[in-house]
Amino acid sequence: MPLFTNDCIVQAAQRLQDQIVRTPLLQSPMLSAKAGCHLWVKAESLQTTGSFKFRGALNKVLQLGERASAGLVAFSAGNHGQGVAAAARAAGYPAVIVMPETAPRIKMDNCRWWGAQVHTYNPHTEDRQVIAHRYVQERGMCLVPPFDDHDIMAGQGTCGLEIVAQLQEQAVVPEVLVLNCSGGGLASGVTEALKQAFPAVQVVIVEIEGFEKMARSLVAGVALGNPSVPVSIMDGIAGPVAGAMPLEVLRRHGVQAVSVSDAQSLHAMAWAFNALKLVIEPAGAASLAAILAGKIDVRGKQVVTVASGGNVDAAIFMQALDMMPHP
Amino acid sequence: MPLFTNDCIVQAAQRLQDQIVRTPLLQSPMLSAKAGCHLWVKAESLQTTGSFKFRGALNKVLQLGERASAGLVAFSAGNHGQGVAAAARAAGYPAVIVMPETAPRIKMDNCRWWGAQVHTYNPHTEDRQVIAHRYVQERGMCLVPPFDDHDIMAGQGTCGLEIVAQLQEQAVVPEVLVLNCSGGGLASGVTEALKQAFPAVQVVIVEIEGFEKMARSLVAGVALGNPSVPVSIMDGIAGPVAGAMPLEVLRRHGVQAVSVSDAQSLHAMAWAFNALKLVIEPAGAASLAAILAGKIDVRGKQVVTVASGGNVDAAIFMQALDMMPHP
Repeated sequence: MPLFTNDCIVQAAQRLQDQIVRTPLLQSPMLSAKAGCHLWVKAESLQTTGSFKFRGALNKVLQLGERASAGLVAFSAGNHGQGVAAAARAAGYPAVIVMPETAPRIKMDNCRWWGAQVHTYNPHTEDRQVIAHRYVQERGMCLVPPFDDHDIMAGQGTCGLEIVAQLQEQAVVPEVLVLNCSGGGLASGVTEALKQAFPAVQVVIVEIEGFEKMARSLVAGVALGNPSVPVSIMDGIAGPVAGAMPLEVLRRHGVQAVSVSDAQSLHAMAWAFNALKLVIEPAGAASLAAILAGKIDVRGKQVVTVASGGNVDAAIFMQALDMMPHP
Repeated sequence: MPLFTNDCIVQAAQRLQDQIVRTPLLQSPMLSAKAGCHLWVKAESLQTTGSFKFRGALNKVLQLGERASAGLVAFSAGNHGQGVAAAARAAGYPAVIVMPETAPRIKMDNCRWWGAQVHTYNPHTEDRQVIAHRYVQERGMCLVPPFDDHDIMAGQGTCGLEIVAQLQEQAVVPEVLVLNCSGGGLASGVTEALKQAFPAVQVVIVEIEGFEKMARSLVAGVALGNPSVPVSIMDGIAGPVAGAMPLEVLRRHGVQAVSVSDAQSLHAMAWAFNALKLVIEPAGAASLAAILAGKIDVRGKQVVTVASGGNVDAAIFMQALDMMPHP
């Protein structure tokens, strides 16, 4: 297997140029004071489809080119599904998103809005991988994996290249990079890009308390899964397994790992509402939560984090607002 | 009185460079479809202090230079107060913000957070202008007016210059510009900048239903006030009078005027939450509300609006979330 390098990300950035949002890298003096550091927040919630997932999906589609003309298929109840649906639309190809029939209506509606067909299944009696592979075999569609793929990782890494450029514009050298992590697509891509430009930056990934599959994988040296399905509002980082290819990148760069609770995530969402004026979903706020909860030593440092998504239901956002902090 | 021109704004932009946030100009395909046009939203809620007011206040302070060394004074219960407090801090000068003792605690706390002294008064027995002028006369402080001032208007206009550059990067020629309006500082500055670059753009200002002081001023040709204090959640555009200098600009460019209700504003805030992932305050959502409520003929057009601020209490934001639309 070829090594995943920053060159892959640079090529992805050229491919995606003008088709993705260059999301802002924000600072709030109030939030920095609260966190006790100089905090930079990459507002990836403002990306097309409300999360970073559009970057990787679109890079994959553009790499596939004509091979994808029969369409794309993905299994995801969340942001990856929307990312693939929107990427297929951008490229002019059909898409099928395989979702459990129990998925929130709003997520199905969003995928349909982008023009995708939603294939629902009974998660107790059917296997989503079998369904997806049927579309591959019978219709010649291309499966778009969520994270364990160099094209996907390179697409997500373009978020990191933007951070590098935005920090350099401000003559800032980051000391700590904090990233939400599930399969590791975003974490590996952004880590590779930042380590290339700032070799001394310390990287910390953030998972759900009690479901630290990547932390255990980093120790074991092989990609592991969670022992059970997380009971958490952080659905965006509640996936069952760590990715082997992302793991290779994260191990190579010696990243550390911490985890946060739902309550800590809600508290961070409230701070984002109040100080940043951003809508961040629970999983997207995990890294900010780790910083605010004192899980990482950031005191006085230049710290960068990615608010990776903003797809949250009103009811859960209201739970965060109930925790509104005062400055 | 010298004419207010785009040159004033260009000079302000040079002065403010690197001290203000170049806020993103966002598009949501879902929101554009709902609005029936190609909609561009300038997310000025992401500006320092959570509103455009920082631009004008900082431009004024930098223009004053050493003359402001005794400090700045402003009367405002809202975003202007925070803008002046933050601008004074950026320039290294003291500031006094005169606020009714009934102002929300959070707004007082925010001004104090930026290092300003908050002078509270009893709105039934005291006059805020008298209090503010006492600081001018006794301490040699400079009064920073909220809108009726070319330096303030030029500062707010830098938001418009950024829009011009951002549209040109995308090769888009805007056909309609929709702006929240109270005293007219933002509306006049942004109108001047856009009319310079795009002379054919149609400009529409948006006020509170029943409190259309600028609409009546445009007809009368003189700056008028509201008949009474608006009962509205759109506090950011509920000021008592239109500005004479902004009025001159708005009349010269033949702007039109519409108005919206609180319910229409809440509905727009919900759409911003859902499709843009932005926290917008009620007054900041007025222009989006006018578009979504069909108050302006935007069908199929390139339309630009400014989400002018994001300083909203959790309780009011929850009212908006209760109106959550489905795509």
